[in-house]
Amino acid sequence: MKAEIITIGDEILLGQVVDSNSAWIGHQLDLQNIAVCQITSISDEPECILSSLALASSRADIIIVTGGLGPTKDDVTKETISSYFNSPLVCDTQVLLHVKELFERMNPGKPMPATNTSQADVLACADVLFNDVGTAPGMYITFKGVVYVFLPGVPFEMKFLMEKHVLPRLNTLSSSIKVYHSHIITVGLGESFLAEQIADIEERLPPFIKLAYLPKLALVRLRLTAKGQDYEEIKRITESFASEIADRLIEHVVIKEDITLEEALVRLFTQSGKKLAIAESCSGGGLASAITLVPGASRMFECGIVAYANSIKTSILGVSEQTLMDHGAVSEETVIQMASGIKRISNADYAIATSGVAGPGGGTPDKPVGTVWIAVCNPHQTVTRKFTFRNDRTINIERTIAHGLAMVWKLFKTELGDI
Amino acid sequence: MKAEIITIGDEILLGQVVDSNSAWIGHQLDLQNIAVCQITSISDEPECILSSLALASSRADIIIVTGGLGPTKDDVTKETISSYFNSPLVCDTQVLLHVKELFERMNPGKPMPATNTSQADVLACADVLFNDVGTAPGMYITFKGVVYVFLPGVPFEMKFLMEKHVLPRLNTLSSSIKVYHSHIITVGLGESFLAEQIADIEERLPPFIKLAYLPKLALVRLRLTAKGQDYEEIKRITESFASEIADRLIEHVVIKEDITLEEALVRLFTQSGKKLAIAESCSGGGLASAITLVPGASRMFECGIVAYANSIKTSILGVSEQTLMDHGAVSEETVIQMASGIKRISNADYAIATSGVAGPGGGTPDKPVGTVWIAVCNPHQTVTRKFTFRNDRTINIERTIAHGLAMVWKLFKTELGDI
Repeated sequence: MKAEIITIGDEILLGQVVDSNSAWIGHQLDLQNIAVCQITSISDEPECILSSLALASSRADIIIVTGGLGPTKDDVTKETISSYFNSPLVCDTQVLLHVKELFERMNPGKPMPATNTSQADVLACADVLFNDVGTAPGMYITFKGVVYVFLPGVPFEMKFLMEKHVLPRLNTLSSSIKVYHSHIITVGLGESFLAEQIADIEERLPPFIKLAYLPKLALVRLRLTAKGQDYEEIKRITESFASEIADRLIEHVVIKEDITLEEALVRLFTQSGKKLAIAESCSGGGLASAITLVPGASRMFECGIVAYANSIKTSILGVSEQTLMDHGAVSEETVIQMASGIKRISNADYAIATSGVAGPGGGTPDKPVGTVWIAVCNPHQTVTRKFTFRNDRTINIERTIAHGLAMVWKLFKTELGDI
Repeated sequence: MKAEIITIGDEILLGQVVDSNSAWIGHQLDLQNIAVCQITSISDEPECILSSLALASSRADIIIVTGGLGPTKDDVTKETISSYFNSPLVCDTQVLLHVKELFERMNPGKPMPATNTSQADVLACADVLFNDVGTAPGMYITFKGVVYVFLPGVPFEMKFLMEKHVLPRLNTLSSSIKVYHSHIITVGLGESFLAEQIADIEERLPPFIKLAYLPKLALVRLRLTAKGQDYEEIKRITESFASEIADRLIEHVVIKEDITLEEALVRLFTQSGKKLAIAESCSGGGLASAITLVPGASRMFECGIVAYANSIKTSILGVSEQTLMDHGAVSEETVIQMASGIKRISNADYAIATSGVAGPGGGTPDKPVGTVWIAVCNPHQTVTRKFTFRNDRTINIERTIAHGLAMVWKLFKTELGDI
């Protein structure tokens, strides 16, 4: 089965919104062995919608469309697809009741604007996907052998409808070609070095397995993708290659699973009953935020301090004023004291501390924009590293976060004697 | 001038990477009055690359392609486009020297893997876009009246090449149709209410101006887009409608500019010399992170505490143990004490505090997942609000962050007497 995703909305083309919906949908379809072969973002123009639907239906079996179902005048999707499917718009009374109830709950006592009534209009030919968490219903249409699914663009409404209505239905459309993925997350080695170390294994991969290197900040994700008719067989062969690669790269392997470094850390710390605390200057709360986005983070993370000002580094974290005067806030000595300070305050086993010049201002000849010090420590040792990033503020912060996580992962594994 | 963006890479289709490059490129092209009419993400397969290039060239004048230029075997772009343009790959000696130097700098003493040499291969027909910040060069090709630009997929490399080489060249390709945007950022009212309040103005919009409502978490962005030949004229008319809309919605308008709420706050606080401090439980550092991602945040933000554990709420923020026992961590009383605690510690003028059940675990009948309390305060008053989100952890955290920012904006403006 081949699928395509179409997102409708000028805001994506204008770069005002990053299309994160398509990545989520792509991942969900992949889990069901449905291959997404194209993602297309188009304008709110009827002719763009019509031509994209026609082209996609010539290539794919399933077309998921998001966006353009809102109550305001800029949303033209429903009228356009009414002509595409040659099916009139009709008011769904159950949806209308729901729209009215939801509106009353969110805006007690206020009269509902007339525009909201049109939210209950659906194509006569569609199976209506009832939207418990919002006003715009989804629609599921089978037309000339192709499945079309129309969903609102609001991410949590789209996700709700996909999980409750769409994925279970797609699951029943079977395919003879199965897809299997295996992932290996690595840190500490660039993609060309990894490739060099496993060149002989890569040479031996059978033609039905593809190996991809996906570098991102401090880590490189390796993905083996196999396609074939016998799922168990391609899984077995792929896993045997994945194990061989992971063994070869052992000192760099975080985990053999498609999860983020912070998810791996939350799991590692939770399983061993250890706690992590974080003192941040240049990463500004981003490290704590990355960790706390992971469900269950509260079992291993209790305290973070964003000590942006020097006075806070001194008063809360106990960095000495002399150190700040002698070495500056962006220095090895300061991050060591920040790390030991936060560990002491929080009684954590491990700590990360960051201090750097994120930019665009604040650089000096000695410490240009992109200079970052990171310290990680546990009761037995402290490891520091200086980075010289360049680039812009956002990237410097992202890299600081990624390297902080990678450093604490490495310290933890060293302590365990794993590497 | 019409443009299309093509991103190459299975990782996007599989949902392992969110395509943020296209949003950035779309925004940059829009600033140059170049309309992006489609964004397409395709697989690393030669036939997909060939057919997408052919289709895009039938619709657009400019095609920007990112991804697939890396040194590893999964990247097939260069060989594929060599056949598309019927132009051989040749080694660029200047690029090869740069690749070798960069490699030596990043990996002193290590021999360079042979795969990296291919980074210097470029199409004979292309103008080479020298990549100072990475190994893969970009390529600029004019073929049958269409401009093709090939760029690496690594975001900061792509941005560097766009800013240094591509945008200045595209700027010289002029177009007679100009585009003008005007933005209004609002908080506190849903899109259908906004639409109702300005329905008569929307009715009067001339056909060359489109109005879009872009809701996102706690705010709704209104975008007026005008197209026409006389830039100054469409700008004048659009701005006059934008002002009329902003005046009508005055108590909800954050700013008449396309910036984020956190950017508006950093500017507002900096201009008035006020400081903000943040105490976070359920938002886990996300609020501090949002603020500190804004350049210049250090002028108005000095301290954030992520008090995930109750013991930290007590020991650092001074929340009373009695309050935690009587009302729990997720309560109005607790967020009030967290806000006053962080304000005291940091000497800030304004504070935000959050506490809630982000989920998926931790919910109770009294306080189900999605229950969030937020307090904002200044020297004169404290405002609290209880939210009952549902949905998942990430969304609950995002909404907490957005509403925290919106609440402190509103308190600030109330204090100024603006609303």
